[in-house]
Amino acid sequence: MPKGQPETVPRDGLTTRQRRNRPLLAVHTGTGKGKSTAAFGLALRAWNQGWPIGVFQFVKSAKWRVGEERALRVLGDSGEGGSVAWHKMGEGWSWVQRDLADSEEAAREGWAQVRRDLDAERYRLYVLDEFTYPLHWGWIDTDEVVATLRERPGAQHVVITGRNAPAALIDAADLVTEMGKVKHPMDAGQKGQRGIEW
Amino acid sequence: MPKGQPETVPRDGLTTRQRRNRPLLAVHTGTGKGKSTAAFGLALRAWNQGWPIGVFQFVKSAKWRVGEERALRVLGDSGEGGSVAWHKMGEGWSWVQRDLADSEEAAREGWAQVRRDLDAERYRLYVLDEFTYPLHWGWIDTDEVVATLRERPGAQHVVITGRNAPAALIDAADLVTEMGKVKHPMDAGQKGQRGIEW
Repeated sequence: MPKGQPETVPRDGLTTRQRRNRPLLAVHTGTGKGKSTAAFGLALRAWNQGWPIGVFQFVKSAKWRVGEERALRVLGDSGEGGSVAWHKMGEGWSWVQRDLADSEEAAREGWAQVRRDLDAERYRLYVLDEFTYPLHWGWIDTDEVVATLRERPGAQHVVITGRNAPAALIDAADLVTEMGKVKHPMDAGQKGQRGIEW
Repeated sequence: MPKGQPETVPRDGLTTRQRRNRPLLAVHTGTGKGKSTAAFGLALRAWNQGWPIGVFQFVKSAKWRVGEERALRVLGDSGEGGSVAWHKMGEGWSWVQRDLADSEEAAREGWAQVRRDLDAERYRLYVLDEFTYPLHWGWIDTDEVVATLRERPGAQHVVITGRNAPAALIDAADLVTEMGKVKHPMDAGQKGQRGIEW
């Protein structure tokens, strides 16, 4: 964790306080572990601040986030911190009435909702889990996403996770961490296990 | 997240199930963000499994984990998942009666307790937050730590976070992720902010 003084002070016309509270766009990418777990770890801090949190899972397999989901729901319902809204593409977005058989269409529906929520300043923290994939696959236009994020109103923080983050998204982000795989149990023939992988 | 089949099947005499449930030693290191947040994200999965969790913070500044601590305590007290025991070096370890003015001694006291807890199989997941520093500084003997971890009984998972993880620890670990800094707001003159850094 970085401490002390920033190395440069930008000439952006902002006070330190304004700059400090500038909403962040964070990207967790790379082939290693910890991209999503770090995003949900960040959500604990947001919850502690009393911020409304919106989670959007852009994956079809819901199994892998079952622990995070249950924990965040218990926290959101505890009345002690912020609220938590959890949206899953894999089980159909909760706001979509009809069945979306097509993953591409489902991903676009998810992004359309994120855009509406950003416009309405519904949350203080957005976790767009595995959102890099529909961008990487060209299902959702990265330039449009970047423009929407750049112009989002208020103090809304956004964390995007997943491999292959597009360059334009990296450029637009304030904080980018590359999770690199140094060693993984699967290299030694070990499969995923409960409590660790999900 | 890796999917599908491991690339190799080791000749270790274990069945897939035995190998799957082998306790893991994970290390989150590197200069980037997300080392600790990913460890606490992992704790959410452990909590969901009903596992007892022991957190040991090997840092003096407690401020930076205040969100994680409160969230984990609320989860631990909810009665819905596993229990959570949170130990802080910064405020004096809870089991130490006298005042430990010396950080080096305090770090060693923390490790001695971890060792006792491992012997007693007290937790299923240990988060040894920023534990690499007392190892890196030579306050605690890395070889002794590695030997203790290798010989730990039962199914106890251990996650160690911090920069400069010693090579012997990396060698002993099953899962190592290097969090690399690609871009950080401090590079643009931005200081840390609540809800994001703590």
